[in-house]
Amino acid sequence: MSDQTNPPDHDVPANDALAKGPAPKTSQQLGIPDPDRSSSMTPGLASSPISQRAGNVAAAEPYRLLNAFLTSSTYAARRNEPGICDLTFGNPHEMPQEAYVAALQEATIPRHDQWFAYKQNTPEAQEAAAASLQRLIGVPFRPEDIHLTTGGFTAIALALKAVGDPGDEVIYSLPPWFFYEPIIIEAGLVPVKVTVDLETFDLDVDQIAAAITSRTCAVIVNTPNNPSGRIYPPAVLERLAAVLESGSAAIGRRIYLISDEPYNRIVFDGARFHSPIEFYRYTLLAYSYGKTHLSPGERIGYLALHPNLPDYDVVASALDALQLAMGWIYPNAVLQHALPRLEQFSIDIPALQRKRDRMVDALQEMGYRVNRPEGTFYLFVRSPDPDDEAFVATLAAQGVFVMPGVHFETPGFFRISLTANEDMLQRSLPVFAAAMEAVGGAPPF
Amino acid sequence: MSDQTNPPDHDVPANDALAKGPAPKTSQQLGIPDPDRSSSMTPGLASSPISQRAGNVAAAEPYRLLNAFLTSSTYAARRNEPGICDLTFGNPHEMPQEAYVAALQEATIPRHDQWFAYKQNTPEAQEAAAASLQRLIGVPFRPEDIHLTTGGFTAIALALKAVGDPGDEVIYSLPPWFFYEPIIIEAGLVPVKVTVDLETFDLDVDQIAAAITSRTCAVIVNTPNNPSGRIYPPAVLERLAAVLESGSAAIGRRIYLISDEPYNRIVFDGARFHSPIEFYRYTLLAYSYGKTHLSPGERIGYLALHPNLPDYDVVASALDALQLAMGWIYPNAVLQHALPRLEQFSIDIPALQRKRDRMVDALQEMGYRVNRPEGTFYLFVRSPDPDDEAFVATLAAQGVFVMPGVHFETPGFFRISLTANEDMLQRSLPVFAAAMEAVGGAPPF
Repeated sequence: MSDQTNPPDHDVPANDALAKGPAPKTSQQLGIPDPDRSSSMTPGLASSPISQRAGNVAAAEPYRLLNAFLTSSTYAARRNEPGICDLTFGNPHEMPQEAYVAALQEATIPRHDQWFAYKQNTPEAQEAAAASLQRLIGVPFRPEDIHLTTGGFTAIALALKAVGDPGDEVIYSLPPWFFYEPIIIEAGLVPVKVTVDLETFDLDVDQIAAAITSRTCAVIVNTPNNPSGRIYPPAVLERLAAVLESGSAAIGRRIYLISDEPYNRIVFDGARFHSPIEFYRYTLLAYSYGKTHLSPGERIGYLALHPNLPDYDVVASALDALQLAMGWIYPNAVLQHALPRLEQFSIDIPALQRKRDRMVDALQEMGYRVNRPEGTFYLFVRSPDPDDEAFVATLAAQGVFVMPGVHFETPGFFRISLTANEDMLQRSLPVFAAAMEAVGGAPPF
Repeated sequence: MSDQTNPPDHDVPANDALAKGPAPKTSQQLGIPDPDRSSSMTPGLASSPISQRAGNVAAAEPYRLLNAFLTSSTYAARRNEPGICDLTFGNPHEMPQEAYVAALQEATIPRHDQWFAYKQNTPEAQEAAAASLQRLIGVPFRPEDIHLTTGGFTAIALALKAVGDPGDEVIYSLPPWFFYEPIIIEAGLVPVKVTVDLETFDLDVDQIAAAITSRTCAVIVNTPNNPSGRIYPPAVLERLAAVLESGSAAIGRRIYLISDEPYNRIVFDGARFHSPIEFYRYTLLAYSYGKTHLSPGERIGYLALHPNLPDYDVVASALDALQLAMGWIYPNAVLQHALPRLEQFSIDIPALQRKRDRMVDALQEMGYRVNRPEGTFYLFVRSPDPDDEAFVATLAAQGVFVMPGVHFETPGFFRISLTANEDMLQRSLPVFAAAMEAVGGAPPF
């Protein structure tokens, strides 16, 4: 994907590569092979010009929707206009923190001749990450438990590939992060979807238990949860651990838990975050620094193992081999050098919490149904119009952009990102109020 | 992999994450499941704790050898000792260029609020890369032909996954880059190996033709070649194109050519590099900036499409989908911002050429058989002892470290990297001379 419509001027705040021109894509541009066209363009060769694997990824509904949102939606056409309110993705809309820039600047100054040499897991980075994670979660992580990756994305892909073979099943709960399905499909695995309780947004552990089959290799849990903002409580995680333990015994195969927790530092009201790894040592913990510093373009994260994971060496060596074979998915040298400093700060969480409260209070007063999130960047709001895409289009027509619930396979909701700046949030409020009024006020459900 | 033996002191030149402690790994640590041990550690669960996929990658001979070299060899034990001569990997052994550091420094200074936001393909980076590639190769690349990746590694993996499905075959020539096989296996594909002519180091196009089957999805060609230093001449590339064209027609399926050319700027004697993409438009061109600036820890590269590739949109969209599903394998924001400057310089090629000449002249005078490479960092030298591992061990005992030919599936050779500094190269010469003498001089073959 690329945007040729952005001005090539570094000095304007429009150089976001996610930005897209308005040209709609055909099914072929989406990577879905059309045998007729292929054969006409490649005389004598009737087969598809791309792999079925690529076609499967491109055909996955969450990818298809996201791609359309980024390339052919009103948002795609207008996202770089001044004055719009961009409440879509977890992207920054204020200048980066000075501490962040300073950490990168320092890390680019070479102190020896190997500064920019090949890096796998640099000990200093592992030590800082392990110490910080131990402080947060209470599990005695050691430096060698940290497998550094190019962000949470590859950490999740790495975990899946380490424990699953093509045809194996991965269970996760809707509403999900919209990238799980493409990642799972690329790995040749099969997504198995259950739903959370849409009132409490808690995991439905019974549904997970019922979804386990002999092909289940992993369950993905995301806490604090995107999009709901829910932090799963210890009692739920304990029940989940028990279900995975008995499920593993029942199928004669270990079911791993992949804990996707990039928001584990983005928590409000002094809440104590609990990681699933506290309750189930067969947990592979995926973390990204991109949320903590609101710098998702700088790719660094890790997959952490429990120090008492059974078969530890076998699993750790599998990760080593895969990190190389998946394309040397270690973070850049500069970010590894910067990591000890990056562990010392985060974005301004109290300021984010104030944004949360202001938006939740205002939206609830207008009649919107929305839980007050315990963490993450997001509000997951009931759409007053059950057709969330129509409602989102109404907002978009007024320059307020949010993500419809269909992107999270949960129609009837929309997601707001609090990473919008204060001005955007302020200007969005009358638009939300007018949109509610236009549909005749809050529905009774 | 991680090195706990390095001092955590940024100020000493020992912070190379490839460095390893001397502890040997067992087959289990290499990720090869042992059902007995697994079942004993996981009561009631007899299945492997890792995927067969991970086990297959870890069991691949080139990975196994490399892992042992990095973890349990004399090199692993001694590589951080002062005074050794490290002629192994294409890693820097001098301080980074000022121009490189300046480019990174400038790129870390944010100029707008989206500076560190999610980046896919930023237009400025694509434009600079396309213009540079067009100047080098003469094909009229456009910005949108450039798909930015985290280095050549992921560019190759991306190409393979876009055109191959599990069970499909990938042909490449020995001696190969030692990472092809793990990457191919991770993608579920089947490596099919042919050999180059070991006198001229030219591709053996007839062998490639004979290796094509109905499952062939791609052929990988690496020019300028690691380890031989050969630049394949136009006549060879033309013959290859003809073979792939007729082979595709014969099997009713398009065979793609993956041109792995990270060294296409590292050429000597004013030679004109020719890319396979000049001769076959079904070429996916993988490039890495890590060689050009000798900064392999900073991961940026691309996969380029021919502007006249048939079914262009289908292939381009497949790459978009896979880049996301493989783990958001786009380069960091900072490196994308830096790319236009990075395109303006390289390491000092004349200095590298002088190193080449000095080493080739000296080694030939001692009786070593070695071709004068036309490009890359490497000399691929006939081992005077047919047992290259034994010969390499002799050198290692004297503190001179090179890579044995078995790492390139080509016993009877060893590889020297000219990225060693002048001092290391100078000190290595008497060791090479003594080793030749110890085996009784140059053999007659």
